[in-house]
Amino acid sequence: MTDPASTPLKVAVLGAGSVGSQTVRQLLERHDELAARIGREFAVTGVLVRNLDAHRDSPIPAELLTTEAEPLIDGADIVIELIGGIEPARTYVERALRNGADVVTANKALLAESQVEIFEAGREGGAETWYEAAVAAAIPIIRPLQDSMIGDRINRVMGIVNGSTNYILDRMDVDGLGMQEALDEAIRLGYAEADPSADVEGWDAAAKATILAGLAFHTHVPREAVACEGITGITGELVQAAKASGQVVKLLAVCERLDADTPDEAVNVRVTPVLLPRTHPLAAVHGGMNAVFVDAMDAGSLMFYGAGAGGVETSSTVLADFVLAAKRIVRDAPPEFITFVDHLPIAPLDRVRSRYRIELQVGDEPGTLAAIAGKIAELGVSVRDVQQISAPQSGPATLVVSTHRAPERDLQQVVAELRTLDAVESVVGVIRVEGVE
Amino acid sequence: MTDPASTPLKVAVLGAGSVGSQTVRQLLERHDELAARIGREFAVTGVLVRNLDAHRDSPIPAELLTTEAEPLIDGADIVIELIGGIEPARTYVERALRNGADVVTANKALLAESQVEIFEAGREGGAETWYEAAVAAAIPIIRPLQDSMIGDRINRVMGIVNGSTNYILDRMDVDGLGMQEALDEAIRLGYAEADPSADVEGWDAAAKATILAGLAFHTHVPREAVACEGITGITGELVQAAKASGQVVKLLAVCERLDADTPDEAVNVRVTPVLLPRTHPLAAVHGGMNAVFVDAMDAGSLMFYGAGAGGVETSSTVLADFVLAAKRIVRDAPPEFITFVDHLPIAPLDRVRSRYRIELQVGDEPGTLAAIAGKIAELGVSVRDVQQISAPQSGPATLVVSTHRAPERDLQQVVAELRTLDAVESVVGVIRVEGVE
Repeated sequence: MTDPASTPLKVAVLGAGSVGSQTVRQLLERHDELAARIGREFAVTGVLVRNLDAHRDSPIPAELLTTEAEPLIDGADIVIELIGGIEPARTYVERALRNGADVVTANKALLAESQVEIFEAGREGGAETWYEAAVAAAIPIIRPLQDSMIGDRINRVMGIVNGSTNYILDRMDVDGLGMQEALDEAIRLGYAEADPSADVEGWDAAAKATILAGLAFHTHVPREAVACEGITGITGELVQAAKASGQVVKLLAVCERLDADTPDEAVNVRVTPVLLPRTHPLAAVHGGMNAVFVDAMDAGSLMFYGAGAGGVETSSTVLADFVLAAKRIVRDAPPEFITFVDHLPIAPLDRVRSRYRIELQVGDEPGTLAAIAGKIAELGVSVRDVQQISAPQSGPATLVVSTHRAPERDLQQVVAELRTLDAVESVVGVIRVEGVE
Repeated sequence: MTDPASTPLKVAVLGAGSVGSQTVRQLLERHDELAARIGREFAVTGVLVRNLDAHRDSPIPAELLTTEAEPLIDGADIVIELIGGIEPARTYVERALRNGADVVTANKALLAESQVEIFEAGREGGAETWYEAAVAAAIPIIRPLQDSMIGDRINRVMGIVNGSTNYILDRMDVDGLGMQEALDEAIRLGYAEADPSADVEGWDAAAKATILAGLAFHTHVPREAVACEGITGITGELVQAAKASGQVVKLLAVCERLDADTPDEAVNVRVTPVLLPRTHPLAAVHGGMNAVFVDAMDAGSLMFYGAGAGGVETSSTVLADFVLAAKRIVRDAPPEFITFVDHLPIAPLDRVRSRYRIELQVGDEPGTLAAIAGKIAELGVSVRDVQQISAPQSGPATLVVSTHRAPERDLQQVVAELRTLDAVESVVGVIRVEGVE
């Protein structure tokens, strides 16, 4: 009989894309160093690919490549899932966990869709799921929320968690590009996919927001409960106007606790483009970088900053989770499972208190400003300032109304009613303002 | 017989200063919430103080206060040590660990001095030491280095880890205060102790640097091996000159891997005031805030930012470690111990490659600049630029020489030789430059 302590841990890698191939390369090249940190030998038993021919020139040794998922998964102590997407990743991950193999995954879409089922499969099989790489790639944020802040009460998480859109908005801000120009550039340089919908519509950020919210509030927030607005409505003019007034446009995933310590306590999770003052720490996050800003009752403000994408950057986190999973198995420590013990209700967007910047095209008649201000006041919303951006000799003028914080439902009503005013030719744009009271 | 799973965990708190009293308050006030996260009841069995009378007006219930350390420690499942300093903290911590009680501590001085002995006591007693609060208070940095980056290779850690000195330097930078003025203000506002030596001499930062280096390099770096220079030599003039050239003075704890992947691989750990370009993420860390910047082979650059001091901020981290220790005991997971598996040699400062900014008072004779440049070139150091800051009609002029990166030993020789030059009246100041190549 072999001594289990001397048997190398068997590691299966599913997927050989940019993260997968980097991960396999390092598991092989840095084997001795990683084994020393684990305290046990390990061996990569195979790498699942869809098509062997497509990987003929891959640096992965040909004898490791396989198209047979089940035998690879069933023989493994640790399964590293880097396929992405829902299926077949979900079937593979749940199979591995039910087999009792720990799973390391970078798959935010899968977790956002099925985290409850995945944790349940792990409970059944006595195996743990490690997913630090699923949000903000190289940045440690899952474990800090889950462990380092477990004694505190988190009130708000605001994250730049999508590198593509941050790259696009940053180019528009720094170099004055228009949206289409910046998007084309992002695709050309590999910051965005050829079909950029998941990024620019905010869906990728929304998947990450549900994961962050679950950890921050100990409450399961289904993906469908995340209000999601992307950056497709952001124009070069808005970005430049923001710049002129000391602000910057960022796409944020926001997880917020509402009415803390009252019977109405609830959480809202949303993805939305916002204006931030340039002095806010998140305003300095450039290019494809990511950052997550956390406000907690005791700890105050914290920020975690780093690379949010990239094969080698993501593999750093995948390898860490692999070492931790292996150490857990070697130490024979019981697996940990996320439990959503707080069960806070999920509040719709209209309960959130926001600040709006509303840009209007207005007629040039006397009394216009009074009519607009009167209508807003009538709806109970307080105006912070009004700016007349352009005032040609004749023709329509542009008016920018900034409100104080008010419930979303009131702000949305303000926008709807402004559209009906005779004095208002059109509502050009509406954007939320964050990072100020 | 009582079911151990139904027995509340017994928690002893040692110390009732600003962190201790906040921690006790929250353990009592937020008992139900914390117990739910742990999954087991717990009870604070006592709070060790030196003098009962001194705590007569404390919010801590009088019946919890005790001056008897041994019975309190010996009856506890978890001991939270918030006394600070070496003794009697070390005796208490080691006693608790040998008893098999997990220890939560915020005591950086103790860890810097005795981490090896403390981990050894834990190994003997089968108990774990939790010390996230010992470095950068509210910021999760211990566990990210220990766990989240365990699959990567860290090349450099640069931290603003002392809030007092950052407050002083920030006031000098933003408000133009002199060193003494800023220091007095820091003491008056409670950012610094009445005896500020541990802060301004860099000793506090050096203690934290040994802890960070141990985690980053899997190598024990004794406190004595940390080269330590404080901020007492920093003048208001230097801070303003730096500001004028787009730089800022910060006191950094630097942990650096030298000659990676060569037979000469080693680590150097130092505390030193440096000039940083204002575009560096650490330059934006104001007031008493802390931040730790990490450069890793795969992950690239990461930054962790937040409150580095304060009773309630530190208690956030102490409570998290308490919950994690309690969960470990409830789950019956084996304790984890830091093991310094890499045993890298520790390199003296003179092997580090630095950039220097050297300010000289020079005579007004022709040929001065040539003589100085010639001497520096002769010693093999390359000059980046030379600036003549003031040039009155007659009398001495101020010359600022910025070098390229060169070995410290060569740079130190440059400074020594410049002092002997006839053309040089005095070397006014020397400071390292970081954050640029």
